[in-house]
Amino acid sequence: MRSSRLLLVTLRDEPAEAEIVSHRLLLRAGFIRRVSAGVYAYLPLMWRVLRKVSAIVRQEMETIGALEALLPQLQPAELWQRSGRWAGYTAGEGIMFHLQDRQGREMGLGPTHEEVVTALAADLLRSYRQLPVCVYQIQSKFRDEIRPRFGLMRAREFIMKDGYSFHADEACLRRAYAEMDGAYRRIFQRCGLRAVAVEADSGAIGGSASQEFMVTAEAGEDLILATPDGRYAANQERAVSLAPEAVPLPPQPCRELSTPGQETIDDLCEAHGFHPSQIVKVLLLLARFAEGAPQPVLVSLRGDQQLNAVKLANALQARVNDRGALLQVMPIEAEALGKEDLEPLPFGSLGPHLEDDQFAGARSWTPRLLRLTDATASALPSFVCGANRPGVHLVGATWQELGPTAATEALDLREAQAGDRCVADPSQRLEAARGIEVGHIFQLGRKYSEALGATFTTEQGEEQALWMGCYGIGVSRLAQAAVEQLHDAQGIRWPVSIAPFEVIIVIANIQDATQVTVAEALYENLRGLGVETLLDDRPERAGVKFKDADLVGIPFRVVVGRGAAAGEVEVVCRHGGDPETLAAAAAGDWLRERVRRERSGLLDDSLGGDP
Amino acid sequence: MRSSRLLLVTLRDEPAEAEIVSHRLLLRAGFIRRVSAGVYAYLPLMWRVLRKVSAIVRQEMETIGALEALLPQLQPAELWQRSGRWAGYTAGEGIMFHLQDRQGREMGLGPTHEEVVTALAADLLRSYRQLPVCVYQIQSKFRDEIRPRFGLMRAREFIMKDGYSFHADEACLRRAYAEMDGAYRRIFQRCGLRAVAVEADSGAIGGSASQEFMVTAEAGEDLILATPDGRYAANQERAVSLAPEAVPLPPQPCRELSTPGQETIDDLCEAHGFHPSQIVKVLLLLARFAEGAPQPVLVSLRGDQQLNAVKLANALQARVNDRGALLQVMPIEAEALGKEDLEPLPFGSLGPHLEDDQFAGARSWTPRLLRLTDATASALPSFVCGANRPGVHLVGATWQELGPTAATEALDLREAQAGDRCVADPSQRLEAARGIEVGHIFQLGRKYSEALGATFTTEQGEEQALWMGCYGIGVSRLAQAAVEQLHDAQGIRWPVSIAPFEVIIVIANIQDATQVTVAEALYENLRGLGVETLLDDRPERAGVKFKDADLVGIPFRVVVGRGAAAGEVEVVCRHGGDPETLAAAAAGDWLRERVRRERSGLLDDSLGGDP
Repeated sequence: MRSSRLLLVTLRDEPAEAEIVSHRLLLRAGFIRRVSAGVYAYLPLMWRVLRKVSAIVRQEMETIGALEALLPQLQPAELWQRSGRWAGYTAGEGIMFHLQDRQGREMGLGPTHEEVVTALAADLLRSYRQLPVCVYQIQSKFRDEIRPRFGLMRAREFIMKDGYSFHADEACLRRAYAEMDGAYRRIFQRCGLRAVAVEADSGAIGGSASQEFMVTAEAGEDLILATPDGRYAANQERAVSLAPEAVPLPPQPCRELSTPGQETIDDLCEAHGFHPSQIVKVLLLLARFAEGAPQPVLVSLRGDQQLNAVKLANALQARVNDRGALLQVMPIEAEALGKEDLEPLPFGSLGPHLEDDQFAGARSWTPRLLRLTDATASALPSFVCGANRPGVHLVGATWQELGPTAATEALDLREAQAGDRCVADPSQRLEAARGIEVGHIFQLGRKYSEALGATFTTEQGEEQALWMGCYGIGVSRLAQAAVEQLHDAQGIRWPVSIAPFEVIIVIANIQDATQVTVAEALYENLRGLGVETLLDDRPERAGVKFKDADLVGIPFRVVVGRGAAAGEVEVVCRHGGDPETLAAAAAGDWLRERVRRERSGLLDDSLGGDP
Repeated sequence: MRSSRLLLVTLRDEPAEAEIVSHRLLLRAGFIRRVSAGVYAYLPLMWRVLRKVSAIVRQEMETIGALEALLPQLQPAELWQRSGRWAGYTAGEGIMFHLQDRQGREMGLGPTHEEVVTALAADLLRSYRQLPVCVYQIQSKFRDEIRPRFGLMRAREFIMKDGYSFHADEACLRRAYAEMDGAYRRIFQRCGLRAVAVEADSGAIGGSASQEFMVTAEAGEDLILATPDGRYAANQERAVSLAPEAVPLPPQPCRELSTPGQETIDDLCEAHGFHPSQIVKVLLLLARFAEGAPQPVLVSLRGDQQLNAVKLANALQARVNDRGALLQVMPIEAEALGKEDLEPLPFGSLGPHLEDDQFAGARSWTPRLLRLTDATASALPSFVCGANRPGVHLVGATWQELGPTAATEALDLREAQAGDRCVADPSQRLEAARGIEVGHIFQLGRKYSEALGATFTTEQGEEQALWMGCYGIGVSRLAQAAVEQLHDAQGIRWPVSIAPFEVIIVIANIQDATQVTVAEALYENLRGLGVETLLDDRPERAGVKFKDADLVGIPFRVVVGRGAAAGEVEVVCRHGGDPETLAAAAAGDWLRERVRRERSGLLDDSLGGDP
């Protein structure tokens, strides 16, 4: 391919819309253009990268026997209503784009395909003899993100590989999950990425076990907590840890303390010398569900701990099983109480023993509290907490004394933090790193097959629900993550395995007939050898072309300059190392050999990355 | 691939939802499943076919230097508003699915990409040096069809290849159009299809010249009119022809004729012995546009001719250029006149000289008629027509006598018919055939580049709008059209070039260890030779497996049966010819050679089709 024919437009200036380096580089180097918020055109160079990533994904899926298919992007609401996910995905903070067709039928634009594939499985899979089977597709997906950003990282239209497996029993599902884990590790390695596997929350997809694959990068949206020995790693959303020991409160009978204007943990500690771990703080929240009344919730947590919103949502969904999907959780404020015709509450000195009576007359809410208590709080033998009267706290309170209203089981609702001890090995302390999620695999179990009636006949003739797994890779996100991990001040440094071209030939002076002749001959030579080569034949100054070559990030650059008269060219590897001067006649074979070795992506030492 | 692992489910019964044979066969043979009206899942076998069609498209696009990209499916309304197509595509009978995102911004699901690609061109193309350039993509598109049907033929979600070229001048556009025409012919030929190129209407896409590629098939939705010598062929929507000569009306002064209850051409002819070609019939219609008042329209046509709706729409859009896109044309009925507070009209005896006064008091319509007259009517020296009074017609009327109100230019609004003479060569009469449109190429000119400000700087330093072409292939429709053209009573007969597998090995008796051994060896042999092979290892009866093989339509079937003991297998070609008995050891090479020759799709003689 010739640069002059490539629709190649590079930008000198930093694009204003870009927030992270990979986004800036993809825009500047002419890989993508924004069409609307979170919606991008993949220009020819980008499309070549995406096709290569997809090809690697396909090869590894084929290796483990997965079948490629293509499922519709337009999905009927009815399937999502059967799985119980329609409301959660379309109302409140739901992220599914949805529309009515000309007959007024509701449809959603697929952010994921559990419903569609399970309905197909119900139709196609009848017997244990057809199992196990794994189907996957590579396709654009849609999410109406609240805040689309970072280019392809959090886009509203993006390319995913999503796969779904069906099994006769859980053991078979676990084997497929392990095989998929291996395939995913090979895919990321072959794409030249350093990725780590971490325990993850199963979120809106559901299921029993799930694992994310994170490309570590400072710009990552996710926080990973891991032990130095690497034996434990989890997304902070999901991570568990041992909380620091609480500072014991000296034994004392329970007494009231006047705390006017002291409405925060910091206020209390400063005024009275408490340690935050001696306090039980409460959060008064309102949970909205797809159906039924909003639910007031009282969460109790040790004063030095933070609430983990994902753990809270999971706990709420598990406790409230008569009102469909959880749509939203928000703090209850004074104004909301007024609208419900409820008495004002003493915010700032609320305690875990707040009476249900306070909510008895609510107009639309459930008239009693759901109480959730984190284990850090329930483990305190004696503590400080609000007295449920303005400007009054209790010191030396115990759960027993607070009475049956406050008593509750111990949950894990707190956010694990860097510095916490690892549960499995308390000698290790968690360390934090940022990551970009590029893959996620789930053991779904029978949630969808039961909801959608996807059953099979066992060898014994019984009708049973299928066991399912699902497996996603963000293909377009992965391509940008590669840029985030592999770049320098000059531009992108693509791994050979996913580079848009493997070699770029730069003619230093397009007016010099010898340079043109040598470059054209090498170009034909490389094409004949099956090396993907770009010939920069544009009538630009050499400096401009070198800068563009660095920016675009083709792994090998051949400069045909003054040495051409002596039959010599210079080869520079974008990933480092000294330039080499080669005989033009030998350069083709030399490059073919270098490229061949790195094409599979399995030799990533050459990328100069950490192991 | 083994059939047992392929998620292969064939149906014995005719699926009720299918209306044409290709749709039935794709459902029965397990290629597709319906997810909602006009929305299909492409199962693994179908996806292999679609990937092969796409690969052929990609090769031929690469041959002519087109660049592959991927543009977003979600398109902002703003771009379509700038081109003036938003209303026409979303209101009235508009076929674009559209939605509001969470910020309330209107977006459409792309049925086509002129707007998006032209906006990109405005950003990326600056200089004549970057021209010409052609960008294409292969992607699912969406159309909210009024009547989705025939499976993938008229689906609401379907796979298209769409390409767009940009040029400095019209001559360059014409050259690219001719190159694309050649590429399209090669694509259809390589896919094993008999396709004809026909003149076409440019419809909602616009532009000056356009040509469709039709796969001839009885189930085709389009009517093709062509001369026996093949030098003229056009879609009936667009076809022109010489109308039959009118039967002259004997010279006579204009007189009134009492015609009570005679409201149709047939009535008049029967009662008074007229020939339909002696009558001028009028159609009173209402045209609604995206903006402004609805327009009453009076169309005059010779009594033996039919109105062509596409020609009418083009004429209306050309005449009314202040009200945006034409949304709908419908007959005006008595009830509608009442709603507009207009006097009743004498339907059944309306004449071309109906006065504008009749519409002067309309509440919301334009208060005067737009008159369109077909050349067959305006050419009549003397004719019969309605007198605009109930139960009265005129005989011997002339345009001059009807007065200035009726006089108008002569347009081509009539539907050409089989049997009409060809305009270019009146010795040839048009013949009719039905076709399935699988491709359409357009010379767009500067319609979109002007609307969206896509300009470039010429060599002389002038700023000019880009010349554009656009080029579509219905990839999923093409795959079904192949089935429509190539099947027999037993099932599909895929051309080798787009078959899901090239060879199927059927083990007649899975209990026979020798058969299994021979089949497995041949399977490994063929895989090693790069032949795409399916091994039917299912524990079914031989008859069931033979039936399935015929239904699925793999080009070569190898039966490993009783002859296996003597080292022999039987090879049957799905496209006909006698079965051949081969030594099992030699079968691999024999098949490789046969498959290799047909893989490119260029040897379509072997398909046994007409030339």
